[in-house]
Amino acid sequence: MSEAEIGPNRYGKSAIRLVKIVRGPSRHVVRDLTVAIALEGDFGSSYVEGDNSLVIATDTMKNTVYAFAREHLTGAIEVFGAVLAQHFLAATQVDRVTVTIEEHAWLPIGDAPDAFSRDRSSTRTGVVAADAGGLTVDAGIADLTLMKTSRSAFTGFPRDEFTTLPEVEDRIMATRLTATWRYAGEPAYDDSFAAIRSTLLDVFADHHSLSVQHTIWIVGRAVVDRHPEVAEVTLTMPNLHHWLADLSPFGQPNDREIFIATTEPHGLIQATVRRGE
Amino acid sequence: MSEAEIGPNRYGKSAIRLVKIVRGPSRHVVRDLTVAIALEGDFGSSYVEGDNSLVIATDTMKNTVYAFAREHLTGAIEVFGAVLAQHFLAATQVDRVTVTIEEHAWLPIGDAPDAFSRDRSSTRTGVVAADAGGLTVDAGIADLTLMKTSRSAFTGFPRDEFTTLPEVEDRIMATRLTATWRYAGEPAYDDSFAAIRSTLLDVFADHHSLSVQHTIWIVGRAVVDRHPEVAEVTLTMPNLHHWLADLSPFGQPNDREIFIATTEPHGLIQATVRRGE
Amino acid sequence: MSEAEIGPNRYGKSAIRLVKIVRGPSRHVVRDLTVAIALEGDFGSSYVEGDNSLVIATDTMKNTVYAFAREHLTGAIEVFGAVLAQHFLAATQVDRVTVTIEEHAWLPIGDAPDAFSRDRSSTRTGVVAADAGGLTVDAGIADLTLMKTSRSAFTGFPRDEFTTLPEVEDRIMATRLTATWRYAGEPAYDDSFAAIRSTLLDVFADHHSLSVQHTIWIVGRAVVDRHPEVAEVTLTMPNLHHWLADLSPFGQPNDREIFIATTEPHGLIQATVRRGE
Amino acid sequence: MSEAEIGPNRYGKSAIRLVKIVRGPSRHVVRDLTVAIALEGDFGSSYVEGDNSLVIATDTMKNTVYAFAREHLTGAIEVFGAVLAQHFLAATQVDRVTVTIEEHAWLPIGDAPDAFSRDRSSTRTGVVAADAGGLTVDAGIADLTLMKTSRSAFTGFPRDEFTTLPEVEDRIMATRLTATWRYAGEPAYDDSFAAIRSTLLDVFADHHSLSVQHTIWIVGRAVVDRHPEVAEVTLTMPNLHHWLADLSPFGQPNDREIFIATTEPHGLIQATVRRGE
Repeated sequence: MSEAEIGPNRYGKSAIRLVKIVRGPSRHVVRDLTVAIALEGDFGSSYVEGDNSLVIATDTMKNTVYAFAREHLTGAIEVFGAVLAQHFLAATQVDRVTVTIEEHAWLPIGDAPDAFSRDRSSTRTGVVAADAGGLTVDAGIADLTLMKTSRSAFTGFPRDEFTTLPEVEDRIMATRLTATWRYAGEPAYDDSFAAIRSTLLDVFADHHSLSVQHTIWIVGRAVVDRHPEVAEVTLTMPNLHHWLADLSPFGQPNDREIFIATTEPHGLIQATVRRGE
Repeated sequence: MSEAEIGPNRYGKSAIRLVKIVRGPSRHVVRDLTVAIALEGDFGSSYVEGDNSLVIATDTMKNTVYAFAREHLTGAIEVFGAVLAQHFLAATQVDRVTVTIEEHAWLPIGDAPDAFSRDRSSTRTGVVAADAGGLTVDAGIADLTLMKTSRSAFTGFPRDEFTTLPEVEDRIMATRLTATWRYAGEPAYDDSFAAIRSTLLDVFADHHSLSVQHTIWIVGRAVVDRHPEVAEVTLTMPNLHHWLADLSPFGQPNDREIFIATTEPHGLIQATVRRGE
Repeated sequence: MSEAEIGPNRYGKSAIRLVKIVRGPSRHVVRDLTVAIALEGDFGSSYVEGDNSLVIATDTMKNTVYAFAREHLTGAIEVFGAVLAQHFLAATQVDRVTVTIEEHAWLPIGDAPDAFSRDRSSTRTGVVAADAGGLTVDAGIADLTLMKTSRSAFTGFPRDEFTTLPEVEDRIMATRLTATWRYAGEPAYDDSFAAIRSTLLDVFADHHSLSVQHTIWIVGRAVVDRHPEVAEVTLTMPNLHHWLADLSPFGQPNDREIFIATTEPHGLIQATVRRGE
Repeated sequence: MSEAEIGPNRYGKSAIRLVKIVRGPSRHVVRDLTVAIALEGDFGSSYVEGDNSLVIATDTMKNTVYAFAREHLTGAIEVFGAVLAQHFLAATQVDRVTVTIEEHAWLPIGDAPDAFSRDRSSTRTGVVAADAGGLTVDAGIADLTLMKTSRSAFTGFPRDEFTTLPEVEDRIMATRLTATWRYAGEPAYDDSFAAIRSTLLDVFADHHSLSVQHTIWIVGRAVVDRHPEVAEVTLTMPNLHHWLADLSPFGQPNDREIFIATTEPHGLIQATVRRGE
């Protein structure tokens, strides 16, 4: 039995809640972010010796985010993330910085220049990682809750002694999608996000699904095919089962009409679709 | 010291998760409800003697909701709630029924007839209570998250030894509104809901607020003034504070631009605005 | 149609998160509270006219809680709540104050005088309401999650066309108990809380239940019978159903052994047990 | 631009809620698990071609968990996880199985043989991964909320233009610990878990902390040093800041007595401590 040593480690500040009001001449814009900063590097002595001389305080990280927001939060979260990442990477003890940003959407109410309602229907995400090799940018969307009420089947699966699920040609498919994609270059991030979000929604809506796996492929392939700036996309889809209610005890038919919505247990399917070599 | 006795009591089933797919000729419609049923009445013996002979099983309540949905969930949740309430009130041991329904919105994706995304921006609510005196119907909206980025002040409040808050002429007001209103008659529920929702949003957006209380009055008064079918409206508004970040240590001004969003602690203001006698 | 007027209203501060460390000679004690203050009174003009001259700022309420904690948080939360309530009631515009306190438990780790682990198994609650007529004190416990693995039945309930639930002589009963009780006098609050908590647990454990209603009666009656300082107790018990898994397709018996734990839907039973006149 | 292809992927069932009642001669025991199964392997055609012929239905996974619980859930969750993992690995299309189990603790109430209260103070976790190379077993504990009220400092950190945090020799450290450790062999899992849990608590309580990083090292090193069956341990510690309340405006001192508990933002520190080569 040999001695203990420190292995992989990272530290930082999470859940930094930042709102910036851009007071334009005709109307305001609300930027509402949750930011996290994480550092990796030459921090072994902070663990093993309690030596904080290289430990950038997480409180300082928080201050930096607020201070940088005035000048640098003027465009996409990916750009703000990159500026923050490069700032922290400049410290000699830092080998790698990961900046994770969620943006919460606020929509103007009518024509009012200064009133907004929050759109909770999804969250835009961005992760910028920086090290000596450069930057990687992963954009994404979370919490996008979707349903297909037809053109979704699940048949032809193997049956063993523990299989009771009937084959079903026409079921409900409901999911709460998380998608993240890696950019190959430096696209116009806001435009790309909007376009990829449209692809996700449109292809989900239009295809005929043979399984959640099949849906992930069709949606993911479309993202890669239609958006050359995307190197790969990872889709995570819980299968939020809707079970047909058994109304036969009450003498009623139920032709795919009345369902019991459930969350526990749920399927969970995740795959990456990437551009082939 | 006298003997124990049973006092006010109620029982029922909560969190009944029901989805109905209406398969119309040109497109589907998704109805997604969370339903709760509660009964009051002659149930003392079920407590004191463990006599279940009058206790309608909560499992039966659940079955009834699913069974009734086929025939009776064809319009507003208030109508479905009323049918359920009258059904359970017909049992002789029942004096009062309360049916609480939340409706979760699903919006069509593009032109697809059978694909939907969930709009989490707010939840429609309805409470139907029935007893020998008749029905009351309370409609509402929950989780509507709103922000004013100007035209919101808080000044002129009393100062005592524990007061440190500065007066502020131009602050952010952010809230997660819950509103419930009681109908005086039997309006077209869906139309009334849509119209009242618009009033809530429009008046919130357009007024100049001197406090959250003031906002509640202006918004609530508008609901009562513009919607004669409303007898009274109750508005609950947490004050989700956004504190101006102090950037002076970093040599930066901050003219209502960069804010720290918080949830703990928060103000909480609730009032009813009613039609005067 | 007559004019709008302001009806019942209240305002205050919620989610005030306060930790006090009592640094005793031999060991520390952690007091961890979440406090809410709500005021009612002569506040109509703050709504209707936006006149804040009588509006004690909720920020001032928060400051007062922290400032009072040094001197006055030396015993039970009920006593601290009473001091706070009387302070705010002294303002002439205030007719009624409600102070709601949750206390989160921290248990010492071993013999260390200064290290603690949080006991999340339940939350102690106290609500002190003060008006010109005096004080009322409601103590309670929340989130106490309990299970009986035998001696729980549910039979003899009525069957109608929507009833499918079988009668069951021996089921699992699981619940997440909330209990609140009103004190008739001014007991030693900490002692009473500990004793009533024991009664709740002991009687829940020892009785034979014919229904959740029956359990509420037996537990509630014991609280009233054994604790003369309690005027009445209200018990809220969700029925968190555990369904026997059907293992017959796999050729296995299942004699009350393997269950599916569920949370949606759930029964919800609430009743007050009070001292008779 | 080349064609899309399927990359890394996995699928399975999550949130399988299983309760087993072991009805012993003198008393019952409650086993309360949340189980997830995930498979990797030859599933590309299920994505690309919608071919389900190799797709073990996630519903079958769920059934298998319930069916296996009767015979195989007789000891530690790690053993149950291993049986499940080996079952699914036997399918030729499966290359890797990951079984994740959380166990929720229920403590007997007094001497009752059949009544329990849930201990929410922490959650035991186990992850068994199986592939052609064999099994790995990661055990752990989650949600263990801890506080040190003295012997915690944070000083000597670098100061730049964005640093405002004062050095503090005696602060509160509060965290919600997650720890996972990999076993080198096949220990008596329940005994190891109990012993490691004790080490985590005892060392946390007894050491003098120079930072959260320092605490992680001291605690992690003790786990590796004292428990030869552990190859490495990963500790994740949010730093749940407790800020000293500024009572000076009220003319009060505050010598580490009254604190504002916060959750947003929070530090987040994670490191692995491993046995050196």
